[in-house]
Amino acid sequence: MALADATAGTRNEAGIAAALGILKQAFGDRFQTGQSFREQHAHTTTYIPAQLPDGVLFAETADDVKAAVKVCAEHKVPVVAFGMGSSLEGQVNAPRGGISIDFSRMNRVLEVNAEDLDCTVEPGVTREELNTYLRDTGLFFPIDPGANASIGGMASTRASGTNAVRYGTMKDNVLAVTVVTANGEEIRTARRARKSSAGYDLTRLFVGAEGTLGILTSVTLKLQGIPQKIAGGVCVFPSIKAACDAVIMTIQMGIPVARIELLDAVQMRACNAYSGLSYAEQPTLFLEFHGTDETVPLQSAEFAEIAAECGGGEFLWTGNPEERNKLWKARHDAYWSARALAPEMAALSTDVCVPISRLADCVTETQVDIETHGLLAAIVGHAGDGNFHVLLLFDDKTPEGVAVAEGFVTRLNARALAMDGTCTGEHGIGQGKMSFLEQELGGAVDLMRQIKRGLDPDDIFNPGKIFREH
Amino acid sequence: MALADATAGTRNEAGIAAALGILKQAFGDRFQTGQSFREQHAHTTTYIPAQLPDGVLFAETADDVKAAVKVCAEHKVPVVAFGMGSSLEGQVNAPRGGISIDFSRMNRVLEVNAEDLDCTVEPGVTREELNTYLRDTGLFFPIDPGANASIGGMASTRASGTNAVRYGTMKDNVLAVTVVTANGEEIRTARRARKSSAGYDLTRLFVGAEGTLGILTSVTLKLQGIPQKIAGGVCVFPSIKAACDAVIMTIQMGIPVARIELLDAVQMRACNAYSGLSYAEQPTLFLEFHGTDETVPLQSAEFAEIAAECGGGEFLWTGNPEERNKLWKARHDAYWSARALAPEMAALSTDVCVPISRLADCVTETQVDIETHGLLAAIVGHAGDGNFHVLLLFDDKTPEGVAVAEGFVTRLNARALAMDGTCTGEHGIGQGKMSFLEQELGGAVDLMRQIKRGLDPDDIFNPGKIFREH
Repeated sequence: MALADATAGTRNEAGIAAALGILKQAFGDRFQTGQSFREQHAHTTTYIPAQLPDGVLFAETADDVKAAVKVCAEHKVPVVAFGMGSSLEGQVNAPRGGISIDFSRMNRVLEVNAEDLDCTVEPGVTREELNTYLRDTGLFFPIDPGANASIGGMASTRASGTNAVRYGTMKDNVLAVTVVTANGEEIRTARRARKSSAGYDLTRLFVGAEGTLGILTSVTLKLQGIPQKIAGGVCVFPSIKAACDAVIMTIQMGIPVARIELLDAVQMRACNAYSGLSYAEQPTLFLEFHGTDETVPLQSAEFAEIAAECGGGEFLWTGNPEERNKLWKARHDAYWSARALAPEMAALSTDVCVPISRLADCVTETQVDIETHGLLAAIVGHAGDGNFHVLLLFDDKTPEGVAVAEGFVTRLNARALAMDGTCTGEHGIGQGKMSFLEQELGGAVDLMRQIKRGLDPDDIFNPGKIFREH
Repeated sequence: MALADATAGTRNEAGIAAALGILKQAFGDRFQTGQSFREQHAHTTTYIPAQLPDGVLFAETADDVKAAVKVCAEHKVPVVAFGMGSSLEGQVNAPRGGISIDFSRMNRVLEVNAEDLDCTVEPGVTREELNTYLRDTGLFFPIDPGANASIGGMASTRASGTNAVRYGTMKDNVLAVTVVTANGEEIRTARRARKSSAGYDLTRLFVGAEGTLGILTSVTLKLQGIPQKIAGGVCVFPSIKAACDAVIMTIQMGIPVARIELLDAVQMRACNAYSGLSYAEQPTLFLEFHGTDETVPLQSAEFAEIAAECGGGEFLWTGNPEERNKLWKARHDAYWSARALAPEMAALSTDVCVPISRLADCVTETQVDIETHGLLAAIVGHAGDGNFHVLLLFDDKTPEGVAVAEGFVTRLNARALAMDGTCTGEHGIGQGKMSFLEQELGGAVDLMRQIKRGLDPDDIFNPGKIFREH
């Protein structure tokens, strides 16, 4: 399947056999080579076909990771990190076999420093687990990619989501990581200080490296105080352009919206049908405000003025948690309601991101593309960042269906790049977007290859991802 | 002078002679080899002795930079970028000679995208020039390291300053850079989208690389809307601990202070004497709030409550610009007033940064150190980030005087590292802190070396900086 864009490369059969023997010996039951384990660890939430590892290590400590990497380095065997398997671009696939390191047992919160608003966790902790753990401290970890992803996976794909407009992405919220490098040693990229000018920014190099430069063994995160007051709101607009104008003015005026999400008419129709709602089937913004009893009403009032100025309808908002959940129900159910438009079809989720001045153009031209080609697709955008997802429903059972999807994705990415945007705002490159990365950054991809060669000369860490050839 | 910690390395005399001939031919008067030009480009604002380049190129375009780097790459000659020369750790020194590229003529603002809150500038634009240029747009570039540094230099040292607590550091405010790499080609690290997961974060790799991986030719920056309302405030505290407690509570409660600066008693005494003020000579916090007519008074009131709870004196604040400047005068004059404590002595400025829970300990222990060793030093801190400067006045004319300064710096950095802090919050490593970087990050420094070797195999870009040996 061409969509997978997979670089199969060559399997190092002798090395894999040798490493499997040693790992089995060393880890016993914690190293599994059975088909079901292998399938579980290449089964992603994506349309990209599975490519199975040869064995799965259930790591329990950083020492396990070091030992496994040393064996794999010696025998030149691929090592793929596996968190929750919620990545979308084939990041957990093993195109050349090798081992998958499963982090589900490395899910301890190691340290919370409430006064410093930070914590250190093992990579297998999920964001929901972390927030449950933190509840009594008055703190929370804000990054919310939708899925209950692992923190290690979120760091590795530079994840973000609905509230990046306020709190940034993983790039902004990881203070330091510990990593097992290609020589099997563990290094720490930074201290716990809030800022530093101490040499190259290795933290940011590992955040978003998709496991191709080393294996994370802990992540130190910034935390936020749980807001005293949270309010939610909804506003319908006559056009995508009007909604995007309201977003631009909101950002320009510095209103610190916590979330500002755009759903297009198709998505609103899907939400009405799926969740029994009766919203106008028009472009709609869903907002959330975080602040105090005093500031949240001010923010909401400021936004209401902007919305009115841009031709929006009434701005409904509420500080009541239950009513807020009701208001936001359409947004929360967006994915499943869009899937329900054609449950028999496969779905793929794109994630281009453009400068916000071009968001309306990019969404509108994409809607025309969808209509012109007779496709079925719903659009949900993290509008404050210029980032939007098209959930395309397509037939993955026939070459024609796949070709249609490929054509759409190719046109969409070209459109975003022409607007000085990126092919991926938050899902990463993985196997699915390698050619688009080349189009996006050209010669800069060679620098990435040079870094990869320097840090992982035998290409053992997640080979066949991000760029072609080592 | 051991403080310089300079790696002289070997001069490539033949290569330098060859390159100088070619560059003179190619650039005529724009390439200068006279002593005064060479001295100007190694004269830093620091105690580190000058190490002169062999020639200075006044670059006017990115093509000039490409041409010069190609010549230097071919002849293996060092290339050192020079902005305003305001770096503090010997970053513009040329320990192995070679050429300095002066960016003062590459000072154009190339593009401002007001709707997207971004701009692209040449590296020689200073932050004051940029903000003057932007004035009519209603936007500003917030990072303020004190000196009127060039944007290229600020990016390269990962600079920050007083309002990083609100707006982040250069790491957070550079969207993309163009860079001439070791093969003389220019690459662009990212598109203009606000966020991206497209491969390794090359932008963050060049931010803070101190010119050791390539030469910046343009920088794309995030901008902010000029706040509707700015207020300033001052509050005296009975102890460093009390002041730091107020800072911690302010940050924990999420009050979006724009600046929160701590001056110790010695610094306040210096300010009173220098600027004819009559502040209590006690630890004092200087604050600034950015917001609207509605939110700024709310923020100020919240802080006043916290200050009272921590035993602080009356919180004086004002939204009137002239009165605000008067209130902040002590902070604005801090550097020169501290120098005036002993104008005949040399000064060095440290910049450790610790988790804010440890700031009071680190400052207090440092004061004890200063007193115990009979030193003269004033402390000013970007308290919201846990970052503070000791301006140490010392005798740089005698080996004993230098040894005293070295001893102090060594103890200070060890103290910060023991508290999980960094030896540099914002000045960078340069030549002055290489041994401290090793202490801070250990094996991670080897990864930096691997990256350097991969991207600059002949070590032409600012050699002898950040780490020893290539």
